Amino acid sequence: MIIILKNDASESHVEEVRQILNERQYGINEVRGVEKTIICAIGAPDADKPQVASQLEAIPGVERVMAILKPYKLVSREGHPDKSIIKVRDVEIGGDQLVVMAGPCTVETEEQLMKAAHAVKKAGAHILRGGAYKPSTSPYSFHGHGVEGLKILAKAREETGLPIITEVLDPRHMDEVCEYADMLQIGMRNMSNFQLLREVGRSKKPCMLKRGQAAKIEEWLQAAEYIASEGNFDIVLCERGIRTFETATRNTFDINAIPATQALTHLPIVADPAHGTGMWQFVPPIAKAAVAAGADSLMIEVHPEPWRALKDGGQSLTISDFTRLMQEIEPIAKAVGKHL
Amino acid sequence: MIIILKNDASESHVEEVRQILNERQYGINEVRGVEKTIICAIGAPDADKPQVASQLEAIPGVERVMAILKPYKLVSREGHPDKSIIKVRDVEIGGDQLVVMAGPCTVETEEQLMKAAHAVKKAGAHILRGGAYKPSTSPYSFHGHGVEGLKILAKAREETGLPIITEVLDPRHMDEVCEYADMLQIGMRNMSNFQLLREVGRSKKPCMLKRGQAAKIEEWLQAAEYIASEGNFDIVLCERGIRTFETATRNTFDINAIPATQALTHLPIVADPAHGTGMWQFVPPIAKAAVAAGADSLMIEVHPEPWRALKDGGQSLTISDFTRLMQEIEPIAKAVGKHL
Amino acid sequence: MIIILKNDASESHVEEVRQILNERQYGINEVRGVEKTIICAIGAPDADKPQVASQLEAIPGVERVMAILKPYKLVSREGHPDKSIIKVRDVEIGGDQLVVMAGPCTVETEEQLMKAAHAVKKAGAHILRGGAYKPSTSPYSFHGHGVEGLKILAKAREETGLPIITEVLDPRHMDEVCEYADMLQIGMRNMSNFQLLREVGRSKKPCMLKRGQAAKIEEWLQAAEYIASEGNFDIVLCERGIRTFETATRNTFDINAIPATQALTHLPIVADPAHGTGMWQFVPPIAKAAVAAGADSLMIEVHPEPWRALKDGGQSLTISDFTRLMQEIEPIAKAVGKHL
Amino acid sequence: MIIILKNDASESHVEEVRQILNERQYGINEVRGVEKTIICAIGAPDADKPQVASQLEAIPGVERVMAILKPYKLVSREGHPDKSIIKVRDVEIGGDQLVVMAGPCTVETEEQLMKAAHAVKKAGAHILRGGAYKPSTSPYSFHGHGVEGLKILAKAREETGLPIITEVLDPRHMDEVCEYADMLQIGMRNMSNFQLLREVGRSKKPCMLKRGQAAKIEEWLQAAEYIASEGNFDIVLCERGIRTFETATRNTFDINAIPATQALTHLPIVADPAHGTGMWQFVPPIAKAAVAAGADSLMIEVHPEPWRALKDGGQSLTISDFTRLMQEIEPIAKAVGKHL
Repeated sequence: MIIILKNDASESHVEEVRQILNERQYGINEVRGVEKTIICAIGAPDADKPQVASQLEAIPGVERVMAILKPYKLVSREGHPDKSIIKVRDVEIGGDQLVVMAGPCTVETEEQLMKAAHAVKKAGAHILRGGAYKPSTSPYSFHGHGVEGLKILAKAREETGLPIITEVLDPRHMDEVCEYADMLQIGMRNMSNFQLLREVGRSKKPCMLKRGQAAKIEEWLQAAEYIASEGNFDIVLCERGIRTFETATRNTFDINAIPATQALTHLPIVADPAHGTGMWQFVPPIAKAAVAAGADSLMIEVHPEPWRALKDGGQSLTISDFTRLMQEIEPIAKAVGKHL
Repeated sequence: MIIILKNDASESHVEEVRQILNERQYGINEVRGVEKTIICAIGAPDADKPQVASQLEAIPGVERVMAILKPYKLVSREGHPDKSIIKVRDVEIGGDQLVVMAGPCTVETEEQLMKAAHAVKKAGAHILRGGAYKPSTSPYSFHGHGVEGLKILAKAREETGLPIITEVLDPRHMDEVCEYADMLQIGMRNMSNFQLLREVGRSKKPCMLKRGQAAKIEEWLQAAEYIASEGNFDIVLCERGIRTFETATRNTFDINAIPATQALTHLPIVADPAHGTGMWQFVPPIAKAAVAAGADSLMIEVHPEPWRALKDGGQSLTISDFTRLMQEIEPIAKAVGKHL
Repeated sequence: MIIILKNDASESHVEEVRQILNERQYGINEVRGVEKTIICAIGAPDADKPQVASQLEAIPGVERVMAILKPYKLVSREGHPDKSIIKVRDVEIGGDQLVVMAGPCTVETEEQLMKAAHAVKKAGAHILRGGAYKPSTSPYSFHGHGVEGLKILAKAREETGLPIITEVLDPRHMDEVCEYADMLQIGMRNMSNFQLLREVGRSKKPCMLKRGQAAKIEEWLQAAEYIASEGNFDIVLCERGIRTFETATRNTFDINAIPATQALTHLPIVADPAHGTGMWQFVPPIAKAAVAAGADSLMIEVHPEPWRALKDGGQSLTISDFTRLMQEIEPIAKAVGKHL
Repeated sequence: MIIILKNDASESHVEEVRQILNERQYGINEVRGVEKTIICAIGAPDADKPQVASQLEAIPGVERVMAILKPYKLVSREGHPDKSIIKVRDVEIGGDQLVVMAGPCTVETEEQLMKAAHAVKKAGAHILRGGAYKPSTSPYSFHGHGVEGLKILAKAREETGLPIITEVLDPRHMDEVCEYADMLQIGMRNMSNFQLLREVGRSKKPCMLKRGQAAKIEEWLQAAEYIASEGNFDIVLCERGIRTFETATRNTFDINAIPATQALTHLPIVADPAHGTGMWQFVPPIAKAAVAAGADSLMIEVHPEPWRALKDGGQSLTISDFTRLMQEIEPIAKAVGKHL
């Protein structure tokens, strides 16, 4: 931690800084520059740090406090240089295979899901996605079929052999969802629902943590740290677009986040171009871009008839569009050392 | 709903649009301009609309779909032109009184809270704030004392007569928090935790809904609509800063949101300059600005010793700074037709 | 400058860092923490610094480089703790008077400008604004009457005695604009037009520098530094809203920027609520908020008939709305120690 | 144009709307929905529209005005469905060849440029880049060698045969820069420098228009329209990252902008991953992503010794990194139907 003092900081303020650091057992190294004096605070247990920075900022003589250490440990690549491989049944995310998760936004009917499941399987997908519990901005939208949806997903797994991923959004649904799902999805609205994150950690189920709409990468990794701190390391991250000023697309897919996250963490990263763009037309080029940038996995929304979808019709691929995309992605995966 | 067709939309695509609208019982009014054809879709039940727009966007001949109606009803000012007044015990938010909520970020010890409670009461605050359950970006931070904190808050109410507001962040804590609190706070991370919003709606307790860090005003009002749709209309909104590119302050307090929100909803609005700036130095000027812009209430973090605070020390006022602020605010409140 | 080394930085990389710092005559202070090693670079001439940080980042063993010193000197409050007062003829900006600049977005006709000029003078404004050269997002919009507009402005000054402020947007117009204007306005699109900034610096005319739509406060102050570095210190800054994700208002007026900027620079600050909101309805509350937050001056767009305005009709006040605003602002100005 | 009326709009306000539309020769089509009345305004000359929307918003009975037509014509794909191919000497941008522009940020010395020029040529680049006039956030940074830099660039063209692209940032430099350059670069800070855009339009030189840091795609295309409206259609667009809340990378490369822009305009699009990320480590993955997403061209900063670069060292590739990147890109280009 670096504490930058104001030019006119009184000695009593500086002394207060020293005292707080001493009490928290930091080592102190003061560096007097030509214009500024800074204090380098060394050591001390992690749990203490977030609050100490804020305490120091409360002292009038302090101009700014800058963190040096990363605020996450377990998911950091620094202590764990090898990439993690997360197993979902027999599918491995994070290795040489580019894992494709596909399926409809929401389980609407058994017929709809089975049709989608068989089609994505045929086109080469590895994991089936589908929502049973769905968050919606409007209270008047469809919110999923709940446990009935989970049962239909399980049936689709039985028929196709594909492992299933589905969203959990309430700690009170954990048991239910864990009974059916192979992998838990934590949606972007719940990235900072720390109660839920802890429960997912305790469940020990493989999980996919979507990035919050306005979450910095550092905050996203701290959310993953919540899960890991409960003993669950089977975490994959999912970039799904961030909120910016641009309105030509629903979100801005943060392609930089793929290499930037991989540099910071050993966890694999999934790209979700449907939410990342909000428009089906742009899903194929952004899916390809994500693979070229080094994504470990893709999540694609596929619906037999997007114009009848109960949610997200406008960002879902038709079966034929998805099938074509799988073919087009193959040489790109190969170019970056992966296979489908 | 306005559907803008592509210039090269085929007749079969346009026919599909018409068919979907007919099935959902919309009236249709086609307007052929010099360059563009648009379809105005009229009527149909609300619950249907979010999904229909997305379905229409899945049709290749559709360029864009634009909503005309607001996606919230119960909290809209259109159907309810008079401002609502929300009662928290005998305090009225939304009327002529500028209601000040003050207290520490977190209940740390009984001594700390009592000291803060008596001080803010003496300075003229109307409601006592204090966190018992605290969300934190880092899993290694302090997360509050839970029910013990609630009990200390209740004791402070007894001693000072101030109603208390405290955060609820897990549906499983609802009963506990409702037993002690006079007003529920929904934090910015939970603005889109729809499960929690529904429970708050069912509780019928007065509540304060903080704006999400990247929430558009329209989305914020839809979150309020979740609460109202369960029959709880005792909602106040709280602007606490949004996330932008600026890093000189922790968040950007969206002062525009005060009049913009008041134009759209009958619910009162609270300003939280501590989170809105992240820096104690800027709390007084932004608090004054919020009052001048027409805020119904202020929420101010006050700590006897900010440099010892377990959370948010850097954005908390000392007791003497808070006392001075209360004095400085009075003439501004008066200038906009309010009193303290 | 603080250089944070990667945990696995090789000694040869660290040696390269030291060498670059030595060559640029920095002092070096290495601080070895428990997990990280950092290098504090001390001293060295300013002009060298922006490039050195980028050079150091090119070395593979370097994790990050953090600046400690502010990248501006002349406009910094550190070396100049007293606020500056800028004189525009006999009007002083930055003192006890809340200076109001008002007038139409654009000079359209002599009749329109004279009507507006007399009205704003009568209502108590101190400086007349009006555009002769206007930037427009669309090439097909009105771009102002150029020198003819300047002459009309000069005539209005003669009639009303109000000093005039008008925008300059091309270095080739400098002489012309300087001949007529009392104060030069640099628009938000030109905040980083460094050629223009240098010319304004050389002109020695009082000037108002609008903040770029996506400019951090630090960048804005560096833009002011360009002007100051040519010897012109008669600079006022103008906050006019930044671009964020919110679409309910055209821009987000950054109220935080008022105290945050005043903490960093001795230059006065003007608030422009018309551009800051983009909607006439919200101009009065935001104008009041800016005064309460400590703004030194307001710039208000006023038009005799906004629904006939050739530009910015939707964010202009009518004469009667402006007159009422001036009355409402008075007690707020007084509450913060200013007078109109 | 769609005018949405307020529910409580008085008949006199609606009449005012009709009158303004009539005067501007719009056709009027009123659509009365269940809750809202809207007015569809049809036709009328383009030049009139930006101002009319703002005028209508000034009428109290108007809730909102929504544009239907795109605010650009000449660069729109609607009237020009075939992609444009821009010739820079014998290099064609927009066709089957993935055109690579490479070279140092800035011309520092003849030796440095020649070394870089020969190296990028050898690695397969098609156009040489290098700055002679450089904008810089700080007035104390290096600003380029001006005409001396242009002469060195011309010499490098002579030696390597590569056409050269260089930035022009002041209308007063136009003749000079046009004398030497094969292609003009308009930097992100000048995207809305409309005076400069018009001069570039008049020059008839091929040009590359970088996106402003906070420019919506629609505004970017209007900037291109400025150039086209002066008769110069030899425009390529350059996505170089936008400003967002994320601080892990310098900018957020907007990969969505590649397909989104191609859907709206016939102009080719270049990707600049150096500015798009600000970090050399991330340039290769983002360059590959851009190609996979369909970019027509890449601009890459290459420096013989980035740790000695006078500008942008931290985002420049070494010659060997660039050479490797060229090899890695080839199969990706091929996968999307292009060749190097």
